[in-house]
Amino acid sequence: MFNWKTIATDNKARAGEFTTPHGTLKTPLFAPVGTQATVKSLTPAQLADLQPELVLANTYHLFLRPGEDIVDAMGGLHNFMHWDGPMLTDSGGFQVFSLADTRKIDDDGVTFRSHIDGSEKRLSPEISIGIQEKLGADIIMAFDECAKPLDYDYAKEAMQRTHVWAERCLKAKTRQDQALFGIVQGGIFRDLREESAHIISGMDFPGMAIGGLSVGESKEDMYRNIEVVNAILPTEKPRYLMGVGTQEDLIEGVLRGVDIFDCVHPTRMARHGAAMTNNGRLNMKGAAFARDPLAIDPECDCYTCQNFSRAYIRHLLVAKEMLASTLLSIHNLHTLLQLARDLRQAVVGGYLDEFADEALAKLQLARVPEVL
Amino acid sequence: MFNWKTIATDNKARAGEFTTPHGTLKTPLFAPVGTQATVKSLTPAQLADLQPELVLANTYHLFLRPGEDIVDAMGGLHNFMHWDGPMLTDSGGFQVFSLADTRKIDDDGVTFRSHIDGSEKRLSPEISIGIQEKLGADIIMAFDECAKPLDYDYAKEAMQRTHVWAERCLKAKTRQDQALFGIVQGGIFRDLREESAHIISGMDFPGMAIGGLSVGESKEDMYRNIEVVNAILPTEKPRYLMGVGTQEDLIEGVLRGVDIFDCVHPTRMARHGAAMTNNGRLNMKGAAFARDPLAIDPECDCYTCQNFSRAYIRHLLVAKEMLASTLLSIHNLHTLLQLARDLRQAVVGGYLDEFADEALAKLQLARVPEVL
Repeated sequence: MFNWKTIATDNKARAGEFTTPHGTLKTPLFAPVGTQATVKSLTPAQLADLQPELVLANTYHLFLRPGEDIVDAMGGLHNFMHWDGPMLTDSGGFQVFSLADTRKIDDDGVTFRSHIDGSEKRLSPEISIGIQEKLGADIIMAFDECAKPLDYDYAKEAMQRTHVWAERCLKAKTRQDQALFGIVQGGIFRDLREESAHIISGMDFPGMAIGGLSVGESKEDMYRNIEVVNAILPTEKPRYLMGVGTQEDLIEGVLRGVDIFDCVHPTRMARHGAAMTNNGRLNMKGAAFARDPLAIDPECDCYTCQNFSRAYIRHLLVAKEMLASTLLSIHNLHTLLQLARDLRQAVVGGYLDEFADEALAKLQLARVPEVL
Repeated sequence: MFNWKTIATDNKARAGEFTTPHGTLKTPLFAPVGTQATVKSLTPAQLADLQPELVLANTYHLFLRPGEDIVDAMGGLHNFMHWDGPMLTDSGGFQVFSLADTRKIDDDGVTFRSHIDGSEKRLSPEISIGIQEKLGADIIMAFDECAKPLDYDYAKEAMQRTHVWAERCLKAKTRQDQALFGIVQGGIFRDLREESAHIISGMDFPGMAIGGLSVGESKEDMYRNIEVVNAILPTEKPRYLMGVGTQEDLIEGVLRGVDIFDCVHPTRMARHGAAMTNNGRLNMKGAAFARDPLAIDPECDCYTCQNFSRAYIRHLLVAKEMLASTLLSIHNLHTLLQLARDLRQAVVGGYLDEFADEALAKLQLARVPEVL
């Protein structure tokens, strides 16, 4: 049911296909995030127009609200949010360590207080898998401990616990129509990342994720650790860099062999009035746009750029109209999704280096040299 | 360019057609309101799916923000907000008397402070028409004084000023591709309403509006005054009841010969989590809906009801997701727009009485007897 096929390679980069019960993912891909079973400010029809390969939802949020039993009773996440394409849920691990209050970690799992109402909750490998099986996404994630990036001793301890928990997730899993991905941890420390990549690679996961990056470390640290891990991960399985989704990270990640990306960045930027373009970011609230008849990006073929002026977008932002979030989310997601499609095409066509240099130059960024 | 045709009548009720440069309006109709050049939480594409005959925008709001010169520079309201169908702007009169701070009325016009930034602004018949000509809607409205409903002396003074201002609006108008409608005022007082209806009817307006109702008076007072005015207004011109848009008001209004309605009610209800159905209002935040797999209205064929459960809508509301406003706005607007289409069909088919009785009964409302 879950099958990886490498279609083309270009140095470390790959173009692949991964089959799931709801369709085949063409990689490299960027996945929009529907944290609470909705990609913020978009209907599923608007999302479908953007043709995303994969859509995420967050186990932590849905566990707390409305609860996995309600989603299950409504026919699972696909039916609940009316999305018929491939979906992925994370494990709740990341949010427990970033959002929840007063968490207490033990070897069995984590007890924490809900950031919504302060009620005591517990997640463990078995509980997380149980929730994710009720949510019913095509790809589910192992429950991991996402450590702060700079503390070696804690990063090691969290990594070791993550490995034990990964085995327990594999044992806890019962559904055959869901692919469980393992997660490599180890902070920014090369020896830990190498150890984790070896151990997770040795387990029977149909896909591999790199967790715990883009959490405050430098871009150089992030990119180096992607290289370290990808040099070890099996080539015949998809590689998912979790929670990463700026344009430069997609480009640098694909160059280093990453297949799957996700991030709230494009929709969050949209709600803050920022437009992501191939030529960099625009603050659409700027007074300079008040009488600007151009589209956000005159070369963009998204619904927003085909139909609305910068002046109108700015007006909506100044007037605090919800439509601003919708139109900017459509544009920003289109920019990331199109970039991922272009990167795939560049891998297939064998011109990834030139494409990457040019795309980074348009963003006024220098390419970060690979170290391995 | 602007031409009224009565297609059918049923007692006082009419089914008509009114041609405008952007299309022919089929009446009775309900017009969604795009206060700030956007029907809140909907893209024009979503709005188009609902097939509204007419869309409103507010002169007061657009005058203050972004300013009529910017809208004009962007090609007018249709182009600015990407709406190609018939549009109507009000005159700003109502908002000056309900939203603005520290207004000072003189015979020439009104000086007030913007509710947004406190800056001093002025509107008069000539200024309002000038703004509306720059906005460029198909139907524009005379600048009127909307008095509090209960004070006879003030209602009379405001009405008299409204009549003088109506003449000045006719003189100020320069564009041939816009229809200027006159507005009948007079509070809840029969003699004033009769006087105003006679005077406005005597002026060369291609359409007539009833202003200053649904502003705090009883339903009986409102309906009675509609009857009083419509008994005098010419039959060969469209009649627009301003700012009125509950289901019962549409039904009772059509029975009394009203052709055009508008109101923010459906989209405002949506933002407050209320669904308008043919069987009454549902508070979608209610815990009873937490596990309810049914559509808001299982008989409704809007996008929301065709694809989403009450449980999902409730989840979105509880989780404060923007999509809740969008899905409820689609449903509520569809309910009103479909009711208007059904009322038209009932007039054409000659079964309006039965339809009205049945529709009101479903809403658990008694029909209000006509008094004239």
